[in-house]
Amino acid sequence: DPNLKVFSLNSNVELAQEIAKVIGVELGKCSVSQFSDGEIQINIEESIRGCDVYVIQSTSSPVNENIMELLIMIDALKRASAKTINIVMPYYGYARQDRKARAREPITAKLVANLLETAGATRVITLDLHAPQIQGFFDIPIDHLMGVPILADHFKSKELNGDVVIVSPDHGGVTRARKMAERLKAPIAIIDKRRPKPNVAEVMNIVGNIEGKVAILIDDIIDTAGTITLAANALVENGALEVYACCTHPVLSGPAIERIENSKIKELVVTNSIALAEEKRVDKIHLLSVAPLIGEAIIRVHEEQSVSTLFD
Amino acid sequence: DPNLKVFSLNSNVELAQEIAKVIGVELGKCSVSQFSDGEIQINIEESIRGCDVYVIQSTSSPVNENIMELLIMIDALKRASAKTINIVMPYYGYARQDRKARAREPITAKLVANLLETAGATRVITLDLHAPQIQGFFDIPIDHLMGVPILADHFKSKELNGDVVIVSPDHGGVTRARKMAERLKAPIAIIDKRRPKPNVAEVMNIVGNIEGKVAILIDDIIDTAGTITLAANALVENGALEVYACCTHPVLSGPAIERIENSKIKELVVTNSIALAEEKRVDKIHLLSVAPLIGEAIIRVHEEQSVSTLFD
Ligand SMILES: Nc1ncnc2c1ncn2[C@@H]1O[C@H](COP(=O)(O)O)[C@@H](O)[C@H]1O
Ligand SMILES: Nc1ncnc2c1ncn2[C@@H]1O[C@H](COP(=O)(O)O)[C@@H](O)[C@H]1O
Repeated sequence: DPNLKVFSLNSNVELAQEIAKVIGVELGKCSVSQFSDGEIQINIEESIRGCDVYVIQSTSSPVNENIMELLIMIDALKRASAKTINIVMPYYGYARQDRKARAREPITAKLVANLLETAGATRVITLDLHAPQIQGFFDIPIDHLMGVPILADHFKSKELNGDVVIVSPDHGGVTRARKMAERLKAPIAIIDKRRPKPNVAEVMNIVGNIEGKVAILIDDIIDTAGTITLAANALVENGALEVYACCTHPVLSGPAIERIENSKIKELVVTNSIALAEEKRVDKIHLLSVAPLIGEAIIRVHEEQSVSTLFD
Repeated sequence: DPNLKVFSLNSNVELAQEIAKVIGVELGKCSVSQFSDGEIQINIEESIRGCDVYVIQSTSSPVNENIMELLIMIDALKRASAKTINIVMPYYGYARQDRKARAREPITAKLVANLLETAGATRVITLDLHAPQIQGFFDIPIDHLMGVPILADHFKSKELNGDVVIVSPDHGGVTRARKMAERLKAPIAIIDKRRPKPNVAEVMNIVGNIEGKVAILIDDIIDTAGTITLAANALVENGALEVYACCTHPVLSGPAIERIENSKIKELVVTNSIALAEEKRVDKIHLLSVAPLIGEAIIRVHEEQSVSTLFD
């Protein structure tokens, strides 16, 4: 369909190329660069008048650059008479700032939603939002894809050394662990961090039976990897046979790689929703692609079919 | 007035401190930092409920960081029940992207205006917009201050070696040069760049009489300093006695400092609308402060007096 155009911005060009291949199109021609003073310069180099445009951009680090790049691209597309402007955000930055946890905090996840709409986005396609409530921050249609099936399929096809238990590293992730457990027909366990008294170190209680089992930790985002590596070590100390970890979004900032390398985690399985810098591509990390999922979602959206059936 | 609060973000803290001093208040308490992954974290550390808040932020380099910082701050202030949110932008980034010069370009100056309003700004105070039409990009009140009187006063109080002529480095700046000339009771001249044939170097024609005179070049923004240094050299070659240059906004990116140092410019006079990095504070550059102007403007806005009388 000549009216379907896919553009990539700078955050995740490799993934965008894979997605274009899945869909069977060439990436649209545009140059996204910087003026001498750091201002973003965008030139769309082919007509998109009357087209359904899909823009692929994760708002991962450098998050503020990537958000502004996206907003300016949307503005350019709108003024160039695109029919629809569909934002494909495999990773939605600022998703953890989704409520006022303390007085006088911003709710940046909502701000970003408003900015996208103001710029001219007509639809958003995203993956594993930190809180599914962020869907409600938008007044335009949003398709929310799930990474769990991709992660689960990886472990299904793997020879594991014993009975499996899916472990959530905190209370917040139990629903996600449940979904993974259903797919692997395994039980779940939860790490229950408690501070016995103020100013005393946290204790890692494990709720559920993990002894002698292959534990698979699952989270949506792994950022500095503090929580996940402490959880892995606690599981081994409490008798787990071995520990895998997985997540959709490998933010992996600061000490993350060092912590993972030094932890009891045998393998960390992540997706390419965020482009992994070269120096983060260490042996312990196994990369899965979300391109088939996102490509299929774009085709279905474009053909006005349901996306939810992707998860059956 | 305890209901008047002034906050500084990270782009220009020195100027903000000066402005607070002019107004006679302490800067509001807030912390603006980054999480490990580069996302901006803002905490406003005092109540601003029912207050008139003034936020000082130039959207100079790093422009995208500075814009996002400002938008997130506005969001936090709005949710903390500020009565009015007044954005003080001594330098308005992306002002040169104020029209579609070619097909399929964004109009980022308008996008930024929309983003500020969407976030919750209720008023903007700014200085020497690249195009005064940008005022019309806003649906909220905007106060547009002028740097020319500050620059003119500097040259008035200076011993110059002869008759003065004010020179605009291009057609676009003639109005500004006129304003300066009126204040100094001097004539004007214009540099008229022409390309005689395609693929032939530009020729600098000088319209007006500059021979034996002290020429003062004036522009709003000096970015890479290509135009201004070529203009200065052309003036000297055509018989100017000596050449000064001045501008409101010292962007000074890329080769700017080197070009200025190697040029025929005797002194470059700029304001602190943009914070000058340490390595750019060279001898040839003379710094004037806009703090008295902006401080006075804030007082007048807060007391609901006219700001335009500031330029009499
Ligand atoms: N980029 C970030 N890095 C680390 N913490 C964050 C970030 N953004 C927000 N937060 C904090 O993380 C908490 C939300 O995480 P959660 O409780 O897992 O939903 C909030 O208290 C936020 O202040
Ligand atoms: N940050 C920037 N640095 C250099 N040129 C720019 C920048 N932003 C916009 N422009 C270009 O500058 C031109 C506008 O400048 P002017 O003609 O002086 O108003 C437009 O053609 C823009 O494409």
